[in-house]
Amino acid sequence: MAEPRISSIDGKLAEEFAVPSHVEEVKEKMATFASFHAEAGRKVVLITSGGTKVPLESRTVRFLDNFSSGRRGASSAEYFIDSGYAVIFLHRHRSLYPYTRMFLTINMLDALEFQGGDGGAPGNAGEVVVNQQVLPNIAQVLKRYHEVKEGRLLLPIEFNTLSEYLHLLKAAAQALSTIGTKAMFYLAAAVSDFYIPASEMPEHKIQSSNGPLQLSMKMVPKILSPLVKDWAPHAFVTSFKLETDATILLDKARRALETYRHQAVVANVLDSRRGYVVVVTPESQAELILTEEDVKNEVEIEARIVSNLTSAHKKFITQQVVL
Amino acid sequence: MAEPRISSIDGKLAEEFAVPSHVEEVKEKMATFASFHAEAGRKVVLITSGGTKVPLESRTVRFLDNFSSGRRGASSAEYFIDSGYAVIFLHRHRSLYPYTRMFLTINMLDALEFQGGDGGAPGNAGEVVVNQQVLPNIAQVLKRYHEVKEGRLLLPIEFNTLSEYLHLLKAAAQALSTIGTKAMFYLAAAVSDFYIPASEMPEHKIQSSNGPLQLSMKMVPKILSPLVKDWAPHAFVTSFKLETDATILLDKARRALETYRHQAVVANVLDSRRGYVVVVTPESQAELILTEEDVKNEVEIEARIVSNLTSAHKKFITQQVVL
Repeated sequence: MAEPRISSIDGKLAEEFAVPSHVEEVKEKMATFASFHAEAGRKVVLITSGGTKVPLESRTVRFLDNFSSGRRGASSAEYFIDSGYAVIFLHRHRSLYPYTRMFLTINMLDALEFQGGDGGAPGNAGEVVVNQQVLPNIAQVLKRYHEVKEGRLLLPIEFNTLSEYLHLLKAAAQALSTIGTKAMFYLAAAVSDFYIPASEMPEHKIQSSNGPLQLSMKMVPKILSPLVKDWAPHAFVTSFKLETDATILLDKARRALETYRHQAVVANVLDSRRGYVVVVTPESQAELILTEEDVKNEVEIEARIVSNLTSAHKKFITQQVVL
Repeated sequence: MAEPRISSIDGKLAEEFAVPSHVEEVKEKMATFASFHAEAGRKVVLITSGGTKVPLESRTVRFLDNFSSGRRGASSAEYFIDSGYAVIFLHRHRSLYPYTRMFLTINMLDALEFQGGDGGAPGNAGEVVVNQQVLPNIAQVLKRYHEVKEGRLLLPIEFNTLSEYLHLLKAAAQALSTIGTKAMFYLAAAVSDFYIPASEMPEHKIQSSNGPLQLSMKMVPKILSPLVKDWAPHAFVTSFKLETDATILLDKARRALETYRHQAVVANVLDSRRGYVVVVTPESQAELILTEEDVKNEVEIEARIVSNLTSAHKKFITQQVVL
């Protein structure tokens, strides 16, 4: 019974979602990255991050989007690297990025100044320096960024639309299938549940003079199903559930695990997502909470999530070997 | 006949679009800014920039958005300041920003380095400097940014949602009405034509398990009408028309001028918008085109648009005085 369903998703992907022209090239790049690091004894995590864009017109002026700054994905990437992983960072164009995310809340020009002010040392005339009162962690972050770059520990891949996301995720799953249980999927992107098939999309900008807008959107195929069963059957897969209604959250997380038979769901509520999540697995349910003390010490909840999941991944690998 | 229509837009604004809590405070700030600069002999332009977000749920996970990086608004702001204007920059949160826009295409950490590399001068240990090979214009831009800041020539105001945009634009129009013909409106933001009234919006995230999504969106009231007639009747008002279909563009621009009786429409087509626009006024139609030579010299089309409109504004002021 499962086969026809899987192949129907494959078919749907090919028919209704435009294939990005660079997908094969990216797949190759990801496969090389994965085997390079697996041979060096590293695990590899694919992180998806940011929201997907769903165009309403084929020459797109309007689109449906999902709330997501990409903060969770970007900070998690740093913690995975700190835990010894290599990271493929499949993220929405211009969403938050590891290390650079510290610049989000400031205007960069407010953090720069001419060296020595007006009376700068003549030897350094025209040098523009970072004001470390404005960006107190910059030296430390820059040093870490250079180390990560030298170690080639981070492979960034961008998407914009839902179509790009779906095809690139499939390519990633296939690329990572070669390293088996050493691969983790950390699907933090906010993916649209609805879309308009290419065949039903108007070419030009929808005219407001035609009156109110009636939109009829189809449901996006659940890609988690072929990913777990077919494309990367040996990997450790973590999905995310974001709800605004806390009362239905855990039930939905459990149902997702039963349906897709993957390893973990990180469940969170929109309003409290930065201080509270529940990591749900088939056997367990772990509440991760930031205390006021943690917040004061600038502890991020992603440090806890990543720590929880890397332990689970380690155990998962051992069990698979024993079996 | 006109009165009831205007007041109905005012009523609709109050009823169906949530009023931002800080609107009165912002209006006060804009009024102070405008009269300060008008007294100093400057003209004041209100630039709107970026796309508007239209929530589909009241605790918003999903929203409709408009394609717009905010590039046109951000670069135009710089040219208006160069032409002696003071600028109120009403822009979408995180859209492109004057002067800072140069950082868009790079990862800032790739533009920073430790002073003197590994063998840096001991006196400057730990200094982080900008690599001016990566950002060749940084010193010049930073200098200009400081001048603009000292002269208080730029007042940034942010919006996210369509509701915030509409209420803040109304507040801006009322704030600028005190300086009469010295005010220009440069409405470059990509504003949604459609919305879901607060009363018809579900509170929680729409569940995909309920099947395909049917959205019924109402038309956004044409705010240009009360702006021109009622809120800022003496100002010079420029609106923008973006289409993907070039064949209907000029006709739509002319019709807008006839309907709203404002001073200018900047008409452009999505694919060619960075190299070609038409400035349409009741009496004239000026094609502004960047040649290959211009592009090579990094001339931006916004320099031409602003030059065209500041001339028209000057003439407009003189004519009003004569009348």
